[in-house]
Amino acid sequence: MSDFPKIAVLGGGSWATAIVKMLSENLDEIGWYMRSVYAKEHLINEQHNPNYLSAVEFNTDKLKLSNDINEIVAYADYLIFAIPSAFLNAELEKLTESLDDKIIFSAIKGIVPETSKIVGEHFHDIYNIPFENIGVITGPCHAEEVALERLSYLTIACDDEKKAKIIANALASKYIKTKVTEDIIGTEYAAVLKNIYAIAAGIAHGLGYGDNFQSVLMSNAIREMSRFIKKVHKMKRNINNSAYLGDLLVTGYSVFSRNRLFGNMIGKGYTVKSAQMEMNMIAEGYYAVKSAYKLNQKNGADTPIIDAVNAILYQHKEPKKVFKKLSQKLD
Amino acid sequence: MSDFPKIAVLGGGSWATAIVKMLSENLDEIGWYMRSVYAKEHLINEQHNPNYLSAVEFNTDKLKLSNDINEIVAYADYLIFAIPSAFLNAELEKLTESLDDKIIFSAIKGIVPETSKIVGEHFHDIYNIPFENIGVITGPCHAEEVALERLSYLTIACDDEKKAKIIANALASKYIKTKVTEDIIGTEYAAVLKNIYAIAAGIAHGLGYGDNFQSVLMSNAIREMSRFIKKVHKMKRNINNSAYLGDLLVTGYSVFSRNRLFGNMIGKGYTVKSAQMEMNMIAEGYYAVKSAYKLNQKNGADTPIIDAVNAILYQHKEPKKVFKKLSQKLD
Repeated sequence: MSDFPKIAVLGGGSWATAIVKMLSENLDEIGWYMRSVYAKEHLINEQHNPNYLSAVEFNTDKLKLSNDINEIVAYADYLIFAIPSAFLNAELEKLTESLDDKIIFSAIKGIVPETSKIVGEHFHDIYNIPFENIGVITGPCHAEEVALERLSYLTIACDDEKKAKIIANALASKYIKTKVTEDIIGTEYAAVLKNIYAIAAGIAHGLGYGDNFQSVLMSNAIREMSRFIKKVHKMKRNINNSAYLGDLLVTGYSVFSRNRLFGNMIGKGYTVKSAQMEMNMIAEGYYAVKSAYKLNQKNGADTPIIDAVNAILYQHKEPKKVFKKLSQKLD
Repeated sequence: MSDFPKIAVLGGGSWATAIVKMLSENLDEIGWYMRSVYAKEHLINEQHNPNYLSAVEFNTDKLKLSNDINEIVAYADYLIFAIPSAFLNAELEKLTESLDDKIIFSAIKGIVPETSKIVGEHFHDIYNIPFENIGVITGPCHAEEVALERLSYLTIACDDEKKAKIIANALASKYIKTKVTEDIIGTEYAAVLKNIYAIAAGIAHGLGYGDNFQSVLMSNAIREMSRFIKKVHKMKRNINNSAYLGDLLVTGYSVFSRNRLFGNMIGKGYTVKSAQMEMNMIAEGYYAVKSAYKLNQKNGADTPIIDAVNAILYQHKEPKKVFKKLSQKLD
């Protein structure tokens, strides 16, 4: 028997599925809430999530599966949210169970559109969860590589180090290394901002800029991220640690990133609407840039890349012209 | 008429060819030394370098071409060396002309094998060139993208800012942006070390590590580069500037990098000798790692990645075991 507290994952997507797989290496029981009745039945009958990372086989004896979010919230002490930020609010509105005394870990990399807050702040401000009960799980980590058991590194952030360590130990295995940090604000903003920079990388690619420019863009992006986060929450952090720079790189250089793909289509001349329809989903960075831009209007960090992406997506400026101007500001 | 001093490029490879192309945008005359008689004749007759960036057309009226290094050294005030470091010493041994009063810019990213020195130090120590007459040209910049006139950024380093600005202005054009810095030691070491990290990235890929690991490796590499360079020459520098981080990324993430390819073959089980024979060339990082390792034995920075690559290439340790141990040290 493991001596872990009761842990549950909320979400049915690829990152949620990857997290359940990681937890399965250590825990005897994992709560798992997913909306799809079909996916739950398929998991019970076939031991696979039919929609995401479908090659991963689960020992379903360990899984406490439910389509009822309240059942899973009632069950667990630690709740790991891995629901896309665009759907989080709608899911939370179903709650009748209290979140008091629950430890909330966010594995979501985005801004809650309804409140323009990062997930930790959303839970803190709307649900009165004290910050010592809020944590963040960040990569650099593609879920697909967890499915393949390729060595990956996670950073677990929580004000309360003991809680961070519990989740870090629950996730660590022969193919997952974990470290803990106190920087919940910085790691969560890094995870949000990197999606904006991945959109920028995609736009640049779509416009025909090459690898030389991409490396300059990423070099400027990490400096911009550092300035942005410092204004939000000043503390001693090494922005080149994996949770910040590593996460930026794995997304910015990934041809599979939805944010990069979305940016690429914008750069190639698609409108925002047609790109979203074509992709049949909304890239998280699309919401993130609006909120990040607004927040930074108050904070006043120098953020030419965020400004450029915002101008293209929300002020209908021509990508080619905006990036020409941006390229003058990079160095 | 341009009011530039007389500038010459020494070398016939792709980077030398790219630099001559950049200079051609601004200068009325450029000295160009290359060893190959055939390449020179082809350039004169066909306006293209037959061996490298062969699509680039030159206005040969502007080119003062020669197969005689002394003729070109005698001609120019500013000498831009773009000869692979492994051949530099042999070329310099041909010199009968003095280098006194010449301004030497290195566009070489490597260690001179005969002296284990970076190029700037080699000129300083062996040829008594004062440091204010030595400069460095660094990327991030693939020559191939210069040929395509894709927007690229160069950093020009020299103790004497006026000289850096002359070269920066001579290279800048609608597709080349330049900036200057005083950090000749740091930029040159960054250009050397990034080849070692590209070998490491290649080894990891060859061993089957995925993108998650690569991003952690690069995040650790830039921190290691920072520690290494700080021990060699301590000054205020932002390691995330393009000349350091950008250059690391464009090489580490390039599937065309010879250093990455060399590492990839080592990771896949080739011996050093068979990889070199198969590639028909020697990756610059191969020499660099030996010297960097030795230098750091004295300096004592924590450099697990350099140590790992050195153990594989020079101590015949098994790549799989070395990287397993290395992965424990990364975070």
